[in-house]
Parts: sequence; structure tokens; C-alpha cells
Amino acid sequence: MRNHIGILGGGQLAQMLTQAADAMGLTVSVMVKRSSDALPSLAGRAVEGDWDDPATAAAFARRVDLVTLENEFVNPLSLETIEHEGITVFPTSTSIRLIQDKWHQKEALARHQLPVVTSQAVSEVSDVVAFAASNGWPVVLKRRHQGYDGKGNATVRRPGELADAWSRLAVNENGLYVEAFCPFDRELAVMVTRAQNGDTVLYPVVDTVQKDHICHTVTAPSQLPAALAQQATTLARQAVEAIGGIGTFGVEMFLTPDQTILINELAPRVHNSGHYTIEACVCSQFENHLRAIMGLPLGSPAMIKPHAVMVNLIGAGDGPALPSGYHEALAVSGAHLHIYGKSRSSKGRKMGHVTALGDTADEARMAAEKCAALLRFG
Amino acid sequence: MRNHIGILGGGQLAQMLTQAADAMGLTVSVMVKRSSDALPSLAGRAVEGDWDDPATAAAFARRVDLVTLENEFVNPLSLETIEHEGITVFPTSTSIRLIQDKWHQKEALARHQLPVVTSQAVSEVSDVVAFAASNGWPVVLKRRHQGYDGKGNATVRRPGELADAWSRLAVNENGLYVEAFCPFDRELAVMVTRAQNGDTVLYPVVDTVQKDHICHTVTAPSQLPAALAQQATTLARQAVEAIGGIGTFGVEMFLTPDQTILINELAPRVHNSGHYTIEACVCSQFENHLRAIMGLPLGSPAMIKPHAVMVNLIGAGDGPALPSGYHEALAVSGAHLHIYGKSRSSKGRKMGHVTALGDTADEARMAAEKCAALLRFG
Repeated sequence: MRNHIGILGGGQLAQMLTQAADAMGLTVSVMVKRSSDALPSLAGRAVEGDWDDPATAAAFARRVDLVTLENEFVNPLSLETIEHEGITVFPTSTSIRLIQDKWHQKEALARHQLPVVTSQAVSEVSDVVAFAASNGWPVVLKRRHQGYDGKGNATVRRPGELADAWSRLAVNENGLYVEAFCPFDRELAVMVTRAQNGDTVLYPVVDTVQKDHICHTVTAPSQLPAALAQQATTLARQAVEAIGGIGTFGVEMFLTPDQTILINELAPRVHNSGHYTIEACVCSQFENHLRAIMGLPLGSPAMIKPHAVMVNLIGAGDGPALPSGYHEALAVSGAHLHIYGKSRSSKGRKMGHVTALGDTADEARMAAEKCAALLRFG
Repeated sequence: MRNHIGILGGGQLAQMLTQAADAMGLTVSVMVKRSSDALPSLAGRAVEGDWDDPATAAAFARRVDLVTLENEFVNPLSLETIEHEGITVFPTSTSIRLIQDKWHQKEALARHQLPVVTSQAVSEVSDVVAFAASNGWPVVLKRRHQGYDGKGNATVRRPGELADAWSRLAVNENGLYVEAFCPFDRELAVMVTRAQNGDTVLYPVVDTVQKDHICHTVTAPSQLPAALAQQATTLARQAVEAIGGIGTFGVEMFLTPDQTILINELAPRVHNSGHYTIEACVCSQFENHLRAIMGLPLGSPAMIKPHAVMVNLIGAGDGPALPSGYHEALAVSGAHLHIYGKSRSSKGRKMGHVTALGDTADEARMAAEKCAALLRFG
């Protein structure tokens, strides 16, 4: 069997994919731009090289049986080159191209009659003013490429704020688009794994809470009325189909005050809002991603306990790989601690996460939050 | 924090310990006698060296913060040398010395008023005859050292079979002992993790079924009347205390036809009859072993679902790392497949295992056995 998987990237998502692969008896190599980018547990399988260089990426691909990635900011030409060599890569260059340009992503979703926030590509400030004339102020100005965790966005409340926002975002010839300001009641996410034969498994709808634009807490399942939850999972499935996704995808959504669900964006990879699946689901998002890209049957996304809560551990400043409070945090019964082993913490860096299961949402939340509150990185 | 763990051995037990350590943010190195002994997933952290040579073991120990092991056949002088250097090693040389000599192990348990099969160290054939005169035929002649998976034992039905058994077993100056033949209704096991401060967690009593002297199926919890289950866990706790064990230990027991529980033997390490704890328990035997040896609080051994069944995957002959039937086996809903990634299978070699959880024992058993039956190594 072709069982040697190459991952572009060597961070925590690659690590959790590798942990799933090890248990399945698969072989993993990871490509990292600098050897220091590989988490210590991946060091023995890391190949140094710039995957954004198509020839370098292709050379790596020839050493493995199939290629996948842990972040969506990979040069699509590299993926195309790998595909031209006849080596399987999921997600495909086509999916990645579509998703990387957030304006194209939204257009594609809208073309499939999927609900998204009204938006428009813009090439000069006057385009924004015209958009606001139709859709009202405030508007959100966004980079078409490379935005994540709130980076590359600016809320513009009135015409006078526009020039500043434009000059801050429109650097490096990065194209921009503008969105109507969308107030929302809550943020939802659904992890979707789609196989090459079209089989799809849908994990439960989760509530996600962001702090400083970074995922902070995930509650599974969402406390959403059944009809809305059904609608969210259907939209998530359709969104992944719309961009031809193969593998595990995160679909982020907004629930507006009038109870409309809008698709915010897709992540073409395993995703922070699915980390809870490691302990909470029969088959995790990581194992299902591997199954999907290898053409193996998908596993069940069913939850083992009725409720799960995941809390991210974010660096507060410079510090070592292990946080203070480690001993105390491990004493919190039922909390599953994940520390990624990054050599240093820094402010805002994702250093680990905690998941707890429960028969009630409160039971899970209390264990996860109690554990996370005891830990401090930096 | 002292967070670099050195493991003597690089097989599947070291691999599953490492998987738990990675999630906790700990660092692992493994020592293997030949580099080919390291499972592929451990290759990047393997140090080649003969741990039975005290100086080599000590040199490895100086590179890490504390040492543990995945098999009990380590030269106790190596462990003593590590201890003399002031480096923590669990289990201790004293525990290992006591356990390695199965006759000493039984003596130690009996000295603590724990129930064991009647046995006697023997230095010549006539000692066995005398023992049988008091205890009746058949008797079981056993090597004091290096016996596992049924190797090093012989059931002797009558005096005429004794000379053959003796000459087969008493090689390399290996001391022997003789045991009364103990018919039993079933075999039980309890995994115990004991911390440095004496805190102890007890996993549920499990039923184990052996095939050809190799663990085949583990059913958790055992279908045992509550009073007997309570007795078995108490005995398991006392047995680990009796030998001063720190870390995770497997305690194997017999239930005789008159419903007496006898302790068969202790494994001073994570154990095949505890693999089910990875999916079935809040904190696995592997994570709890690490917590115990590092002086961290122990995790809960509670089961997440009412029932779990584990089935071993044993090599039928020479073959590759991945079995036939892999695709079909992954389609069995609820079965968790573990393939160790050994480069070749051979007859009788442990190649992986399958665990399934269930609300009933039958549900778990059906999924685990269906999955295992589809797989064939060699």
C-alpha cells in the first residue's frame, strides 16, 4: 500500500496528524522551511526546504506516496507541480487556489447559492465608498490573501477612516475586498471530511468563541435549535462540495441576530475548532483526514460523550515550552492537556489546548476552563 | 521542569508511551540495542546501545532527566548504576531484581500474605519429585528468569516426563522452580499505577484470554461478581505495594474453580492487558505511567463507556508492516485500529491491536472481533 505521507509544515497540526498516522501504522515525513520550524517530536522526520519553491516541493513529493498540508498559504504552483508529476496531493491546487483568495472563495460559495456576507473586490478607495453607499457604513476592508486570526482586516466606521485602513492593508500588491459589516450573535463551525468518492462525514456544529481574533473556546455540540444545527451542517457540506474539497475542512459560520446562518470562510485543512474530536469523537478530524486522502473508508464522527469543551492555551509572553501551573493543571480530573512542545512561547502564540468531556456542557466547561486557567505560558 | 524521559527499548510499548508524552509536551529519547529495533516512528529519537552494559546505560541516562523501561529483562546492574549517578529510574533496580526472578517475586508476594500458587525453588530433579509428593502431579516446571508468553514453562504430568523438561529448561545456568498445577476458570488482570507519594489508581479488572500463551482478547470490565472484582483490585494494589512499584504495573491473576483469586505474576511496566485504556479510560496506562514517574498527579482510570474489548493482532507468518484487509477493517464502525509499524511480521509477533467501546460488552466485542478478523499479517 502507498502509505508514506508527506506533510508541508511541521507545526501542531502536522504533529496531531502524525500522531494519528503513527497509530494507523502509516509513515510520515514533514517539510519545514527552517529545521527550527519542526516541533521537537517531528524533528526526526523533518526535511528542510522551501515548499513555496515548486521544484523543492516536487523533490519532497517524490520521496513520499502522497502529499497534504497543514496550512493554506502554500504556493499553488508548488501543488500544481506535484500534481503534474502524478503524485497525489490533497487538498488539490484548484481547491487551494480558490480558498487562498478570500474574494474568489466567497464568489464560489455565492455562485453555489450559499449564503455569504455581501462583499466586493475593490481596486481603489472610491470602490469602497461606492460599496458603502449601497450597503451602509461600517464596512470591513480585508486582504484577499494571507489573512488569518484577524490579521489583514480592518473595520472602517466612516469615510474618514478609510485612507488609513487602505494604506495599512494594501501593501505588497495585496488585493483587497470589502464586506458589509455583519453583526452576529455567535460564531459556529463544522468540521467536514470528504472522501475521494464523495462520501462525507459531518462533525457536530460547535460554538466557537474568539478572543483577540484567536480561537479561544469551542463547545461541542453547539446549543443551537435542531433546525438551525441541521441547516448549518447542510451548508458546511455544500460549501466543501462547492470548492471540490477532499480531506478535512473547517467551515466557519456566523449566526446573525435574525437567526440567519452565513458562511464566513473555509479552512482547507484540519482546524483548531476540531481539536476536541481527538478525545470526543469515535474518529478524530486528523484520522479522518488521513483516511480521506488515502482513499480509505471514513470513520464515525459521533461523539463518545454528550458534551465536550476545548480551550486554547495562548502564550502571554516569552517563556519556555512547558507552562507554569503544569503540575496543578494535571490534577484537574477529566481535563486532557495537550502541550505542543514549541521551544518558546510568545504573546498570542498557540502553545497547546485542553479538552474535557462531560455528560453536561457545564461539567465539560468547568473542567476545561479550570485546567486552562491554571496554566500560563510566559 | 525535568521533562526529558529516556526509555530503554524502542518497541510498541515505548511507542505508545511516546505518543502520550508528545501530547503532554514532554521529550523522549529511546535506547535500542540495534537501530533496527526502533519502530520507524521512534527512529528520530533512538540512541543505539546495549542497555545491559551498565556504562552504556548510564551514558544514555546522563543525556535525559529520568529513565524508564518497556521490558523487564534489563540488567538490574544497569539500573543500579543509573541510580548511583543520582538519576531517577522507575521501576527501581530493587523492584526489577525482585520481579525478574519469578521465584523471588512469588516469595515476596507470599511474604506479604498475598495468595499465590504453591511453588518451590528447585536445584535438582529430585526436588521436583519431592514437591510433587506433597502437592500431587502434574506440576509446572518454570525458569526463574526470562520467561514470557509461555516461553520457559513445561507442564510435567508424571515422573517419566521430568527428565526431558528439566534438560530443555535448565540451560545457561538458568535456575528453575516448580509450581503446583493450577486449573483455573479464567484469567484476570488489573493495571495499577502507583505514584512516588504512594497515591495509587486502579484500572478495572479485565478478563484476559490467551491463545498459544499470547494475550489474545481483553474484556473490560470483567464480568465478575462485584465482591470478587473488589478482591482482585485490592490484591493488585497490595501486590504492587509489596514490591515497592512506582509507575504502571500489570497484575495477572487466576480465578480458580472454587472462586479463589491467585496472583500469577506482575509486569513492572505498561502491559498488553492495559492497551484498551488508550480509548476506554479518561487517562491511559501510558499517560499515568509518565505522570507517576515524573511525580505529577495521577489521572482518572475511569472508563468513558461502560465496556471495551481489545483484540491483539498477531503475525501469522512473514509479511509487510501493513496487513491485508486494512481497507475493509477501517470500515468497521467504532473499531480503533493500532498498527505498530514493525517492518516485517513473523509468526506469533505482536503487530497491532484493535479496541472498540460499547454500551454493552457484546457491542464492543463484535466491533473489535469483526475488525481483527479482517486483518492478516503474513
